[in-house]
Amino acid sequence: MGGEVFGDDYLVISGVSGIAEAGDGDITFIANPKYMEYLDKTGASAVIVSPEIEFDKKPLIKVENPYLAFASVVTLMTETVRDLFGISDMAHVHPDAEIHPKTAVYPLAYIGKEAKVGEGTVIYPGVYIGAEAVVGRDSTLYPNVTLMDRCVIGDRVIIHAGTVIGSDGFGFAHGGTERVKFPQVGIVRIDNDVEIGSNCSIDRASMGATWIKSNVIMDNLIQIGHNVVVEEGSIIIAQVGISGSAKIGKNVILSGQAGLVGHISIGDGVIVTAKTGIPKDIPAGQVVSGYPAMPHRKWLKAMGAVSKLPEMRKELEKLKKEVEELKKGKGDAKS
Amino acid sequence: MGGEVFGDDYLVISGVSGIAEAGDGDITFIANPKYMEYLDKTGASAVIVSPEIEFDKKPLIKVENPYLAFASVVTLMTETVRDLFGISDMAHVHPDAEIHPKTAVYPLAYIGKEAKVGEGTVIYPGVYIGAEAVVGRDSTLYPNVTLMDRCVIGDRVIIHAGTVIGSDGFGFAHGGTERVKFPQVGIVRIDNDVEIGSNCSIDRASMGATWIKSNVIMDNLIQIGHNVVVEEGSIIIAQVGISGSAKIGKNVILSGQAGLVGHISIGDGVIVTAKTGIPKDIPAGQVVSGYPAMPHRKWLKAMGAVSKLPEMRKELEKLKKEVEELKKGKGDAKS
Amino acid sequence: MGGEVFGDDYLVISGVSGIAEAGDGDITFIANPKYMEYLDKTGASAVIVSPEIEFDKKPLIKVENPYLAFASVVTLMTETVRDLFGISDMAHVHPDAEIHPKTAVYPLAYIGKEAKVGEGTVIYPGVYIGAEAVVGRDSTLYPNVTLMDRCVIGDRVIIHAGTVIGSDGFGFAHGGTERVKFPQVGIVRIDNDVEIGSNCSIDRASMGATWIKSNVIMDNLIQIGHNVVVEEGSIIIAQVGISGSAKIGKNVILSGQAGLVGHISIGDGVIVTAKTGIPKDIPAGQVVSGYPAMPHRKWLKAMGAVSKLPEMRKELEKLKKEVEELKKGKGDAKS
Repeated sequence: MGGEVFGDDYLVISGVSGIAEAGDGDITFIANPKYMEYLDKTGASAVIVSPEIEFDKKPLIKVENPYLAFASVVTLMTETVRDLFGISDMAHVHPDAEIHPKTAVYPLAYIGKEAKVGEGTVIYPGVYIGAEAVVGRDSTLYPNVTLMDRCVIGDRVIIHAGTVIGSDGFGFAHGGTERVKFPQVGIVRIDNDVEIGSNCSIDRASMGATWIKSNVIMDNLIQIGHNVVVEEGSIIIAQVGISGSAKIGKNVILSGQAGLVGHISIGDGVIVTAKTGIPKDIPAGQVVSGYPAMPHRKWLKAMGAVSKLPEMRKELEKLKKEVEELKKGKGDAKS
Repeated sequence: MGGEVFGDDYLVISGVSGIAEAGDGDITFIANPKYMEYLDKTGASAVIVSPEIEFDKKPLIKVENPYLAFASVVTLMTETVRDLFGISDMAHVHPDAEIHPKTAVYPLAYIGKEAKVGEGTVIYPGVYIGAEAVVGRDSTLYPNVTLMDRCVIGDRVIIHAGTVIGSDGFGFAHGGTERVKFPQVGIVRIDNDVEIGSNCSIDRASMGATWIKSNVIMDNLIQIGHNVVVEEGSIIIAQVGISGSAKIGKNVILSGQAGLVGHISIGDGVIVTAKTGIPKDIPAGQVVSGYPAMPHRKWLKAMGAVSKLPEMRKELEKLKKEVEELKKGKGDAKS
Repeated sequence: MGGEVFGDDYLVISGVSGIAEAGDGDITFIANPKYMEYLDKTGASAVIVSPEIEFDKKPLIKVENPYLAFASVVTLMTETVRDLFGISDMAHVHPDAEIHPKTAVYPLAYIGKEAKVGEGTVIYPGVYIGAEAVVGRDSTLYPNVTLMDRCVIGDRVIIHAGTVIGSDGFGFAHGGTERVKFPQVGIVRIDNDVEIGSNCSIDRASMGATWIKSNVIMDNLIQIGHNVVVEEGSIIIAQVGISGSAKIGKNVILSGQAGLVGHISIGDGVIVTAKTGIPKDIPAGQVVSGYPAMPHRKWLKAMGAVSKLPEMRKELEKLKKEVEELKKGKGDAKS
């Protein structure tokens, strides 16, 4: 991990653990200053810390980014080889599906006609892969994921349990009292190295593609409407809702329970804080909060003022009376 | 579609597409003025537009409602015949279930005791239909839908993947420190021509029925509490939550992430904008926003004022000082 | 139920029903004064009411808590014996799993290597139980529930359809332009007598455990981040989101669509009203509302003032002009 060891550098580490739970033989880390008090208390045998920490009672490894360094240690110590046992006899795979022999298709998975699954990919029980859908290499579809027909998933994609990809977009045409379902004949396309949490809903495009580009990471219970495009590297936190045809730039952060109307553009690098509601385009680089969304600092001031509003009302009433008095007084003075 | 053709009316159309992606042989449409700039650029061979559009470089079809007209063209050109192959050997159907022979029950679907499935209905893999549940004609239950026992679904109903219908309502009786689960012995009833998105949760009634009436359309990730009634034609957008025993009128629109407390009535034709929180009854025909909900225009003004609040505070402080000065001055004047 | 009968105490009751739907032979109840008008109209043969109600046209049973009393009557009259038929031939159970013979494992359920399922527990179709996961006694996992590897569920736990327990927490380490997935090697632990609604997502801990303690009840579509701890007896309503490492005290109520940031503590007995956003610790016993959360009474006043803001702005403008006039007048006076 490229750090410097302070203390016994022959120590053998046999496990990884959080600082509160760590015991003998474990290595742990401190990244958040909130947890600094545990440095003295932890049962860990060694601690990864940032360079400025001084502590001589325990072996330390000093690195620029303790969380990143610890992540690589955990990855190293917990990595398991994927058991690519092939296609279970209890899975239902259409004879015209193309499944690479080095995969794992669990019992009770369903793979439709002319669907394709690439080398190294794991398909858990209860997964549905529709006709002509494609899953790339080294991807994982956890239990009860639904991937509707013709949708396309890239390489090294992880989709957690219960997520639905490619359900119909919400499109209805209105003519007077009549309402007609607009057929949703597009697809969902998910590029390489995307991770999607559990119980998300990503709708297929009405035409064309709903498109999640590479290195996007999504949390749980997120709604993505039809024809949404999310550019590379963006982060979407739990329970966010994005309405149809919205375009999300690169490296955007959409925090928990935020909501976006349809047909808008969010510029690269925008940060949307939790619970924000966005009714229109946001230029690149802004940090926005509130509903309707405004610049974050402005929102902080406005919310500070909101909590003072009842006082402001009282003061305003008082001033009104005082000004009334003054006006009367002036009148008196003039008379 | 009842429109008028301007330009070559012998042109053969072989495909349908969105205006940005359309190519040779495709027909497309413009309904949103935002996309008018594409009229000159599109590769489409013909465009459906509204009557006021003038453009002579491409064949046009002019109709009152281009989106509706285009929907009917797409429906016509993409319609497929449902393959009603009957009951798969790899489905699990209780011997006492009544399944019409002209249905499609996919592998890995489960249909319980005395459940009924009508003609033309398609049951995808991973669907669970509980004992004595009923599904009408020409309905579709997409993968991993759960329909609990005794719930009743009408004709031409579409339920997208992962949606749960008939889980227990959230009902608990409190007696001092004791908490007792109130048994949820009612059902969910869904009438004809309803469409429900993916990963929704619709709870069964404690007693009686949670009832979604005909022509209601629902988006994804929506919560419907026990004993809720939604009248005909209403529209519920993604991530809305409706608490127990709320009554929603006809042709109501509940926009994304709105929330309603229990035991209230929303009148016919009410429009609830996104993220609104509704603590009490709303009379018919109102448009409401904010939390607690208020008339939409009032909310727009209030939110405009909120963003000006920090300035208002400064102005108020300044006025206080000025009035103080004036009072002193008056005092001086009097002395 | 420990109540006092007023009227015919030989009456035979054959059913239970809500007050609006009740018919001959049914017993019903009134707990909410909103429904008092039905007392005269109901077709029920007897009504459970609170002691102060006077009504002589129908047999009454007077008890301190009519809802609780009625719940016990419904439980008594609707209770069914669980059919513990053992393991279906159409379930997929790993040979090294330990399943108590007195259980019900439905067709199309999947139970992994070295998983354990206790006596009296029912596992519905489409359920996935991962390797080394443990489910205690008399618990119910409804259809399409996913319980990932090594997670532990206690006794008398109910998990409704589509809920995912033990998907990866949302943890990524950033180093410059690089982003590394932090392996989520912890578990989810759910203690006795917990009930969890449908389509919830409960993430496994990065290390250690995400922990839902005994007697917690959760509604539908709830997000629980990694390493969250919820203490005994708390209530979480639909669509709440709790970010990673938040600690929720005992007997807390989190109302619908509320959201909590990570790494905070909510004290015992706190009540969080609907749609509240919580950015920091809340001490025990508080009632909080709004975003950012403030004491509920303060929020009520502030929201009352918000709806008056446009008027306040006008008044403020008027005052400014009046003060300006007064200043001029004073100037004039001085000159």
